[in-house]
Amino acid sequence: MKDLRQVTVIGLGLLGGSITLRVLRSLPGVKTVGYTHRPSTRSKAKQLAVATEIADDINKSVSGADLVILATPIHTFEDIFGKIHDALSDGCIVTDIGSTKVLPHRWAAKKLPETIHYVGSHPIAGSEQRGIEFARDDLFDQTTCILTTTKKTNRQAVQTLNSFWSGLGCSVKLMTPTDHDRIFANISHLPHVVAAALINSNNNDDLKFAGKGFIDTSRIASGPANIWADVLLTNADNTTKGIDKIIAELLKLKKAIKGRNKQQIENLLETARKKRSTLINYKIKKEDLIS
Amino acid sequence: MKDLRQVTVIGLGLLGGSITLRVLRSLPGVKTVGYTHRPSTRSKAKQLAVATEIADDINKSVSGADLVILATPIHTFEDIFGKIHDALSDGCIVTDIGSTKVLPHRWAAKKLPETIHYVGSHPIAGSEQRGIEFARDDLFDQTTCILTTTKKTNRQAVQTLNSFWSGLGCSVKLMTPTDHDRIFANISHLPHVVAAALINSNNNDDLKFAGKGFIDTSRIASGPANIWADVLLTNADNTTKGIDKIIAELLKLKKAIKGRNKQQIENLLETARKKRSTLINYKIKKEDLIS
Repeated sequence: MKDLRQVTVIGLGLLGGSITLRVLRSLPGVKTVGYTHRPSTRSKAKQLAVATEIADDINKSVSGADLVILATPIHTFEDIFGKIHDALSDGCIVTDIGSTKVLPHRWAAKKLPETIHYVGSHPIAGSEQRGIEFARDDLFDQTTCILTTTKKTNRQAVQTLNSFWSGLGCSVKLMTPTDHDRIFANISHLPHVVAAALINSNNNDDLKFAGKGFIDTSRIASGPANIWADVLLTNADNTTKGIDKIIAELLKLKKAIKGRNKQQIENLLETARKKRSTLINYKIKKEDLIS
Repeated sequence: MKDLRQVTVIGLGLLGGSITLRVLRSLPGVKTVGYTHRPSTRSKAKQLAVATEIADDINKSVSGADLVILATPIHTFEDIFGKIHDALSDGCIVTDIGSTKVLPHRWAAKKLPETIHYVGSHPIAGSEQRGIEFARDDLFDQTTCILTTTKKTNRQAVQTLNSFWSGLGCSVKLMTPTDHDRIFANISHLPHVVAAALINSNNNDDLKFAGKGFIDTSRIASGPANIWADVLLTNADNTTKGIDKIIAELLKLKKAIKGRNKQQIENLLETARKKRSTLINYKIKKEDLIS
């Protein structure tokens, strides 16, 4: 890629490691530098050769970088911005891959100098697995990456980042951080809350009889609790609004069941069935277009 | 199977058709008779040769049967018991494969003579697909079938039915209809309600961004609305209690998020993660034992 000579990734977990591996595969000539604060993860990263270079010092890792990507938990971003800002070269693009975007934009505006261009990224990829040992160079194939921008965001930086994520296999979409956090509260953070609540409302004896339906419905609750606590906290208002909306829907169903109103139960279930069918058809169409 | 010469299945959908197909494969010498009230489904069933014989009349279909299995929606059972009771041979075993069991037991006690032995069955198999064209002779492989019995249930009939479902590939467990309906409200009917509520609380524009997490969490909401309305109605008290329990869990999470109590959010998510991990390990162990 013309504008990029060095990409530095801070945080070498499943996602961070998958980014550097994919850059090595798809963007030949681009140097990748990885940093993580844990010495044991640095050793693993070196062994697995996930990047051109694994740095022991965060400031050294970003020195000379054209693009710095934060792939650490969201609550660490503000500190990291504060730590690295002097070591960044003028014109450097900084992004992060956190699942919420309003606060990262706010922290970047507060901590990074005007010569540094911040854009938010949210590649919708991952799994309930975690750790560099699960990193793969095809994690971003056929996924969407949201870029979040405000009126102040540097357009050239957005263009470079758009090409970067496209080069990694993503289909890129732009939106504001506010729209992003509202939408993802509903379609990502809320399902996690619901899956956790569903499991917690059951006891282990009953769970022995759980079938495929329960196992699928609850899958995402196997994700790392600290990462998700971070996501929910940094999108607190949208998530609590989402919880209110789902409670309202549950109460509609409860009322229909309690009132033995078969037609109403069927209407509510049929509405859900049709909406999901639209969603699945949309997904299939999107994949068809990509492949 | 020594005690069975003829098995009649009433209702030829995915499950009914899969039962007759599997009997044909695994219980050679046992005659299978299928009945459904829809002429078009009868034609398809004949074309697909899912049973030894497809009957046009419900009473003729059960005549001479040692075992009659109702594979129709639950709300039809009481009527069907009322229709067929005179045509059943003395000593015939009657069962059904409905997902709730308290009401079927009550209806059988009311409508079937004492010379007929009713036992409830609930094979935990199926998919969100429906219709005889999806019937398969391996649908019951490595599944559990619950038999529901009360103090009045004929022991010999339970034994015969136990061998029957084992012969079809199921691992059989016994419980009372009351225990069954409580447990399955929690681990099967509640997930369906939750999946439907989750979809209904979202609008189609936001759903375009749904990822794998949302798609899995909501999968079961693609099941047929009328069948599920039936299930929820015939297990109304347990299901509404389950809805109350999940709302209580959602409110715990909401309170922790609203209070920015990271430790409490993490504790709730971690409890869910661990419980799911126990559940998954149990599933794997169970499958290992079977294979």
